[in-house]
Amino acid sequence: MTKPQSWEARAEEFSLYGFTDMPSVHERGTVVVTHGEGPYIFDTNGKRYLDANSGLWNMVAGFDHAGMAEAAKAQYDRLPGYHAFFGRMSDQTVMLSEKLVEVSPYDRGRVFYTNSGSEANDTMVKILWFLHGSEGNPQKRKILTRWNAYHGVTAVSASMTGKPYNEVFGLPLPGFIHLTCPHYWRFGKDGETEEEFVARLAQELDDTIQREGADTIAGFFAEPVMGAGGVIPPAKGYFQAVIPVLKKHGIPVISDEVICGFGRTGNTWGCQTYGFTPDAIISSKNLTAGYFPMGAIILGPELADRVEAAVEKIEEFPHGFTASGHPVGCAIALKAIDVVMNEGLAENVKRLAPRFEAGMKRLAENPNIGEYRGVGFMWALEAVKDKATKEPFPASLSVSERIANSCTDHGLICRPLGQSIVLCPPFIMTEAQMDEMFEKLEEALKKVFAEVA
Amino acid sequence: MTKPQSWEARAEEFSLYGFTDMPSVHERGTVVVTHGEGPYIFDTNGKRYLDANSGLWNMVAGFDHAGMAEAAKAQYDRLPGYHAFFGRMSDQTVMLSEKLVEVSPYDRGRVFYTNSGSEANDTMVKILWFLHGSEGNPQKRKILTRWNAYHGVTAVSASMTGKPYNEVFGLPLPGFIHLTCPHYWRFGKDGETEEEFVARLAQELDDTIQREGADTIAGFFAEPVMGAGGVIPPAKGYFQAVIPVLKKHGIPVISDEVICGFGRTGNTWGCQTYGFTPDAIISSKNLTAGYFPMGAIILGPELADRVEAAVEKIEEFPHGFTASGHPVGCAIALKAIDVVMNEGLAENVKRLAPRFEAGMKRLAENPNIGEYRGVGFMWALEAVKDKATKEPFPASLSVSERIANSCTDHGLICRPLGQSIVLCPPFIMTEAQMDEMFEKLEEALKKVFAEVA
Repeated sequence: MTKPQSWEARAEEFSLYGFTDMPSVHERGTVVVTHGEGPYIFDTNGKRYLDANSGLWNMVAGFDHAGMAEAAKAQYDRLPGYHAFFGRMSDQTVMLSEKLVEVSPYDRGRVFYTNSGSEANDTMVKILWFLHGSEGNPQKRKILTRWNAYHGVTAVSASMTGKPYNEVFGLPLPGFIHLTCPHYWRFGKDGETEEEFVARLAQELDDTIQREGADTIAGFFAEPVMGAGGVIPPAKGYFQAVIPVLKKHGIPVISDEVICGFGRTGNTWGCQTYGFTPDAIISSKNLTAGYFPMGAIILGPELADRVEAAVEKIEEFPHGFTASGHPVGCAIALKAIDVVMNEGLAENVKRLAPRFEAGMKRLAENPNIGEYRGVGFMWALEAVKDKATKEPFPASLSVSERIANSCTDHGLICRPLGQSIVLCPPFIMTEAQMDEMFEKLEEALKKVFAEVA
Repeated sequence: MTKPQSWEARAEEFSLYGFTDMPSVHERGTVVVTHGEGPYIFDTNGKRYLDANSGLWNMVAGFDHAGMAEAAKAQYDRLPGYHAFFGRMSDQTVMLSEKLVEVSPYDRGRVFYTNSGSEANDTMVKILWFLHGSEGNPQKRKILTRWNAYHGVTAVSASMTGKPYNEVFGLPLPGFIHLTCPHYWRFGKDGETEEEFVARLAQELDDTIQREGADTIAGFFAEPVMGAGGVIPPAKGYFQAVIPVLKKHGIPVISDEVICGFGRTGNTWGCQTYGFTPDAIISSKNLTAGYFPMGAIILGPELADRVEAAVEKIEEFPHGFTASGHPVGCAIALKAIDVVMNEGLAENVKRLAPRFEAGMKRLAENPNIGEYRGVGFMWALEAVKDKATKEPFPASLSVSERIANSCTDHGLICRPLGQSIVLCPPFIMTEAQMDEMFEKLEEALKKVFAEVA
């Protein structure tokens, strides 16, 4: 085997790239990351980038948090791996489950571990299929989600995801139903008030359930704020309108808190920010501050009891991943929860969120920004050709990609999502770093809009 | 929230147990693991167990390998997390992909990372669906596997798994077809030679493909030795008989090396032990010696080229996990590969495999052991009521569970699987530890068979 020499060539030779625009890689090369410092990362050329993506929403404590690394290292010295099958599990696993229920919206519950948000959503679907089957409703299998939702990439969690790109896999699988995205600015009809928009979506949900039959629907999954859909907070009153419809029909509500959970929206859970209590919570990403692959399902009291009864009936729940409840992951998560909740990170999000919003509002004065939206430390700007009509730029112009590439050139990482630019920086971001972020982004907006206008 | 006090009670209060016999937990309590030493683990009561399961096949370097921990800790100090999206990835990720192709059976190829074997198999199915769709064959979607195969627990990888317990989830999904398990001792017909058995299975495969239509079948997945099916090496000549049938019909062959890969069968890959070259390899478990959740797909040259062409056509492969190619996981995997291949672990498996087999052969002289089977460091004993007729004990007697529980009482962890007892110890096991394993198992066999005979 002949090995290429540069980092970029080695990366291109041996990788199947995921979620990567290949023409950009061919033209610009791969950014090979070596180390980090606070919210900054460095590449093999020594170039520094302010990562306003927190890696992938998850590195909320930055890229060199000493306490986080210490927790990981201590556990590697103690017990570097174990499973949670056959009635055995590590002490760290026991402690984390207890902690997760303690910080959940529930006074009791049960926890199941996976290695990712994808696996957690996929597992939650399996739990619902298992539960309904055990309760005599094996036909209760359909899953309700929304367009622009992102729930992962296993075949089932990709089927839950409401993105057109999944067509290339022949997905979604049958039985995954996508409802209207609750984005009022984009999907509200001419002359429709936000209240009317929400009422229409609740009616669509009710109509869908009646059409499909409530006894065929296993559950409803929703991110409190849609993340990879382009940071889309729900229209005002959305959850208050749809949850009673779901309750009326006996359909469990699952809050996918992979992005929102542990502080991103300014509270521990996104469902708290939007005033609803789900039947179960899906957590990942911030759960370990990105230091370890981990997902968790937290079943609230009612689902926990029903699932437990179903398990006892057949004596064993035949499901689990080799690294479910991995001791190092659990030790890291225990530390991450402490760092986020008790070391001022969640507090910093709350404190700087108004400043973040003010910055976004100012950038949105640009005639080619149609909307700014967000909450806490997750925000988006949406580019438009025409602010009044909301007409987007032609997709062929790749406006958001050009803005993101221009930012990258100047040492700022932000994420293009459709026509939007998404900012979701680490919770440790300071005022000065926030200013750096806005300044670099503003330059890029000016440059690219001047080119395409 | 009122917290229970003992470790066992805390575990039971907050966990949804996976792959665990709940009556055993209620009766015997949970084993809460605190630390390890070589192939031994210790629980919260200070009790020591020789873990002849290697955790879950994966802790092949034992539970306190200093070099492994050092590699993990060094990377936590350098870059504790990053993703591999948007044309960015860590230097560790680049190096591991290069290394995986280097140690693969291929002279070139492409690597994709996941967090588990489940995700790797699920992803491989998505890759095949994507590839066939791109090549104008969107109907080429069915997946062939075998009864008793284990490929994971996502809804799709559980559908590939050939175990009856998946019925409780309403799985397998449509389009997942299970062929006869190539276990001659159990499934060979009266008077059928091993050669005739293999010919029958090859014919069944050809008939199945003709019946379903080759143009509807996406791929064939097989573990070289079935692991969680109960350590089932293929009947002699099995892969040499079935692979030409698959080739004839243009069906890709995927070797699921999650258990076999990196030394378990005595070679780097199980497919090498059984003399075939698959179109792609699925790796996990030993890949990180259990120190980090990671799965990898290694596409051989032909599939790599075809998939790459399909990706270039749409400019982006819309798939990937947040922790795909995590720098800590990649640094750990680089070290694990080195430890297994160059620090005498693979060598120890080769050296002690004959001794292992001799011990199994001796235990199989017991009139209630119907068969011993295995290779390298993965072996099973199958309990029978009648050696001559191969009649199993009634399932209600839970014979294998009782043997395993008796072993656990005496400080040996082995795994009951159906009517079998599985042994798959860490690769660092010494002769003395092997003797301890056999002595404790022999005592348990005597005790339990005396009770049930």
